[in-house]
Amino acid sequence: MDYQSILDEISNEITPLFGTGKVANYIPALAGVNPKQFAMTLTLFDGTQYSVGQADTLFSVQSISKVFTFTLALKFYSKALYNRIGHEPSGNPFNSLVQLEYENGKPRNPFINAGAINVTDALMSHYGGCEVAYREVVEFIRDISDDISIDSSEIVSASEMQHGHRNLALANLMKSFNNLDNEVEDVVGTYFKHCALEMNTKMLSRAMLYLANHGVDPITDKCYITPSQAKRINAVMLTCGHYDASGDFAFHVGLPGKSGVGGGIVAIVPKLMGICVFSPELNAQGNSLIGTKALELFTDKTGLSIF
Amino acid sequence: MDYQSILDEISNEITPLFGTGKVANYIPALAGVNPKQFAMTLTLFDGTQYSVGQADTLFSVQSISKVFTFTLALKFYSKALYNRIGHEPSGNPFNSLVQLEYENGKPRNPFINAGAINVTDALMSHYGGCEVAYREVVEFIRDISDDISIDSSEIVSASEMQHGHRNLALANLMKSFNNLDNEVEDVVGTYFKHCALEMNTKMLSRAMLYLANHGVDPITDKCYITPSQAKRINAVMLTCGHYDASGDFAFHVGLPGKSGVGGGIVAIVPKLMGICVFSPELNAQGNSLIGTKALELFTDKTGLSIF
Amino acid sequence: MDYQSILDEISNEITPLFGTGKVANYIPALAGVNPKQFAMTLTLFDGTQYSVGQADTLFSVQSISKVFTFTLALKFYSKALYNRIGHEPSGNPFNSLVQLEYENGKPRNPFINAGAINVTDALMSHYGGCEVAYREVVEFIRDISDDISIDSSEIVSASEMQHGHRNLALANLMKSFNNLDNEVEDVVGTYFKHCALEMNTKMLSRAMLYLANHGVDPITDKCYITPSQAKRINAVMLTCGHYDASGDFAFHVGLPGKSGVGGGIVAIVPKLMGICVFSPELNAQGNSLIGTKALELFTDKTGLSIF
Amino acid sequence: MDYQSILDEISNEITPLFGTGKVANYIPALAGVNPKQFAMTLTLFDGTQYSVGQADTLFSVQSISKVFTFTLALKFYSKALYNRIGHEPSGNPFNSLVQLEYENGKPRNPFINAGAINVTDALMSHYGGCEVAYREVVEFIRDISDDISIDSSEIVSASEMQHGHRNLALANLMKSFNNLDNEVEDVVGTYFKHCALEMNTKMLSRAMLYLANHGVDPITDKCYITPSQAKRINAVMLTCGHYDASGDFAFHVGLPGKSGVGGGIVAIVPKLMGICVFSPELNAQGNSLIGTKALELFTDKTGLSIF
Repeated sequence: MDYQSILDEISNEITPLFGTGKVANYIPALAGVNPKQFAMTLTLFDGTQYSVGQADTLFSVQSISKVFTFTLALKFYSKALYNRIGHEPSGNPFNSLVQLEYENGKPRNPFINAGAINVTDALMSHYGGCEVAYREVVEFIRDISDDISIDSSEIVSASEMQHGHRNLALANLMKSFNNLDNEVEDVVGTYFKHCALEMNTKMLSRAMLYLANHGVDPITDKCYITPSQAKRINAVMLTCGHYDASGDFAFHVGLPGKSGVGGGIVAIVPKLMGICVFSPELNAQGNSLIGTKALELFTDKTGLSIF
Repeated sequence: MDYQSILDEISNEITPLFGTGKVANYIPALAGVNPKQFAMTLTLFDGTQYSVGQADTLFSVQSISKVFTFTLALKFYSKALYNRIGHEPSGNPFNSLVQLEYENGKPRNPFINAGAINVTDALMSHYGGCEVAYREVVEFIRDISDDISIDSSEIVSASEMQHGHRNLALANLMKSFNNLDNEVEDVVGTYFKHCALEMNTKMLSRAMLYLANHGVDPITDKCYITPSQAKRINAVMLTCGHYDASGDFAFHVGLPGKSGVGGGIVAIVPKLMGICVFSPELNAQGNSLIGTKALELFTDKTGLSIF
Repeated sequence: MDYQSILDEISNEITPLFGTGKVANYIPALAGVNPKQFAMTLTLFDGTQYSVGQADTLFSVQSISKVFTFTLALKFYSKALYNRIGHEPSGNPFNSLVQLEYENGKPRNPFINAGAINVTDALMSHYGGCEVAYREVVEFIRDISDDISIDSSEIVSASEMQHGHRNLALANLMKSFNNLDNEVEDVVGTYFKHCALEMNTKMLSRAMLYLANHGVDPITDKCYITPSQAKRINAVMLTCGHYDASGDFAFHVGLPGKSGVGGGIVAIVPKLMGICVFSPELNAQGNSLIGTKALELFTDKTGLSIF
Repeated sequence: MDYQSILDEISNEITPLFGTGKVANYIPALAGVNPKQFAMTLTLFDGTQYSVGQADTLFSVQSISKVFTFTLALKFYSKALYNRIGHEPSGNPFNSLVQLEYENGKPRNPFINAGAINVTDALMSHYGGCEVAYREVVEFIRDISDDISIDSSEIVSASEMQHGHRNLALANLMKSFNNLDNEVEDVVGTYFKHCALEMNTKMLSRAMLYLANHGVDPITDKCYITPSQAKRINAVMLTCGHYDASGDFAFHVGLPGKSGVGGGIVAIVPKLMGICVFSPELNAQGNSLIGTKALELFTDKTGLSIF
């Protein structure tokens, strides 16, 4: 298939949508992002990349980091992780405390905020501290992205912390149910540092290859997780990857994926490629409006939906 | 692939699981079913069938009927259906009233009870009454199953009605929000008659072919729905098809599917086959315990998971 | 105290409030009521009555009937009633299904709709049918009102039934939890007939005397319930009598009371009098706006608050 | 009435109940309290005190402090306080986050934990800091108790803070809704210091006199709040003073009151006296089991219920 032409077409077709969404504004550091941006990159198993738009522009990965921290937690804890975190869709806003209280402090899945905070806590316990847990996650992301330059924005993570009362509430509630090992502030602080990592669509589409290839990086042959673990992560991305629009995404796009409020969305085509799209304006459910549309156009044009 | 050998293997491997689940007992008509049954059938696009176990034994399809009523409703209403019913996972028990009240009488998706009752109501409005709506659904199912003998058990549907207070509560609640056109008792009665249809694994695996083939029956070439509608149904099966174990099913099996408390589960392998498995003992989430395991073994052995 | 002057003063002071509330409009039969009405009657223990306004005008008692059906249920079931119905404030709208589902079909108290429907069911079981249960409740109310003319409006109860889907949902939900003995339609129908009783402020203030006097009618010396049961009813009126404005009423008025969407409010001054006020316009919480204000003025002027 | 004889009778009658409740054990500092204690004191308007049991033994006032902080907040904020805190019963556990989230961070009333934490925040804003807010509350309590020796246990408040994750969750959730002015840790820390005040039944019954006498201390004639504010506090004590057993307390005791998990309960008889009872074993709802029974016996024997 002529992927470059397809990306160029998509880039043209999404142009009228600029201005119809809303950049995340709950922290100043994100509110200031230029809304008129679009980038999309495909990375094939041999490393070939097709890009359109500002594919070198770094943006805040935000919740996309949940995919990578979940990967490491699954690797180290395997089934024991399910004592702490479920894997079912939540049917509630991503930061709701209601279900967390009704279900005794056990988050529904690793992609709602409570779940990802809990994953961070599990990694801190495994690695023995927040510093090392943060560093190991970054190392892992650098490794799968094959890019040692990746780093976190201190301005963004500090700003998150200053406005992070709801996440602190979630962490405290889990702690009150004895479902958090480490200190609340440390866990939430580390979680925010992972969310504040800055990457571009080239890096992120590259980073998804191991999930498209049963846990093994097809370029380096490094084995990160088992095929079964990779299948699990893809299943959770499909059922829970887009907050309360996961069903919608499954239909319109039909690929396992994960979005972040920074405007990025990652996805995979099993056995074929990693994908990343970026555009900062969000739809009502908090997912990149143009990014979602671009992915929908992509599976329409290529027939690569898993359904 | 040697599908018959795979089915035979599966049949052997699930034997130790008999006795570890529990037959549905909320109505006498289902409670009396012999728990020690197992059947599985694959139907390929050319009509070839591979079966193991009691593949000719009829059982109560129950919630599997929701797939077929949803198909007809989607066909006739298209996007207008989404004014009445959502398409997101619910994160709540299949018969909960809580979310229905919080969301003003709009069911989360067509596979929770409230959603399927609402779909039945939409069909009654379309066809102009409960008799004709019931009959047309049966005709459709006979058509896609290529079997005119299929019928509903009056004993089961009458028994359901007698114990159907929670479903009547759901329907009345929707009616109070003006999200139900017809009389509550008529709608719920018609819904129960569809649930009481009796089929076997051969019929049901055959019936799923149109969903594996973008809306077109690959044997008869009849076009039932658009490719986009077929994709939608498959996406909803994957995200919402197994009550509050949909995420689990997505991981362990990795195929779009739908279960019923009668012990049946249908599934599809896109572009390849329809599948049905039957075994009456249920797991804690109300899905066939052995049926789920058999499908998991099937995708493990064949690598046919969509992920 | 010169009660007549106080009533006259109140009648003047509430005049500017006409037009600031909204007559109940969920059924046509109530929506048609003239909003510009006001009546208030005090009945002392010797039978002396002080009235102002249209104290002879009949109105629909609606939820005020819950006080009388609860009285009879408490009389016949005593503590056994608490197996079916709680006696704590609900903190939710009067017709919510959420708490009823979370608490397994046991209504929080006898003054929310689910509770009053359950009380009606208990009375039907005690008396052996809906006809006799309806008749006995009417006889009781005629007796405590000392007025054999009291009757129910068939237009109102039929209209309620036609729009009563939420109450049918509540009753069906209780039935599904085995917390309703009789047929849902019969119970809800009987409940609506009690709500459709028509009385005036003279009758209703007279009817409250037994609650102001420890269960004994101070005029006829008939003993209806024990002092402990009377105290119980008064406590439930104070904590739960005004839907989600019960705390507000306790503060502003400071008397045990019960309101109905027909615009009536009954109250008692312990050991002194029965009170009824009527004015059809409701506030945001569904209580008579002018009626609440009139009672507040009354306790301010007389110092008769229980606090 | 011979109050001393009545207290002696009560003391005898409650003896068999020792061992039927459970001392609060969520923090070590409270878990170590000797369960076999009982004390009860009545303080009349002329200062006469009647006591039975260990009326000089200090205990942790815990939630009883909410009455006094609410008094000060009402005094300084008056109606503006209702923008931050409601005054309706909650129908949920005292430390639930569910309702707080559904109602956008506005606590239902000042006696659930979220409400009292919010009141503490309001006082910190009024006084300009946590130190001074703490001190002024203590001064107020010393003043109404006429006892300058009253102080807080640092062991208890430190222990509360160490196990206070649920309260920190509540405070963070309010903060996320912009319904908390000060730093979360400061507010919760100050709240815990008020809860850790240590008093005996003589002090606390004395301290309640202003609420029994329309806001004015009947001994010193100091006016603390308006009659209307006193009525408000009494109404909130009656409808919300005993967590999810407030309706039960209203019936069994029939007096405005407030309990604490330290085993104390305060109550008033309007225009007559302040009461305090102490016994550490709690019932299922978290109120002193013997204390509740003692107050019930008291109103039974004296007929002093407000109903």
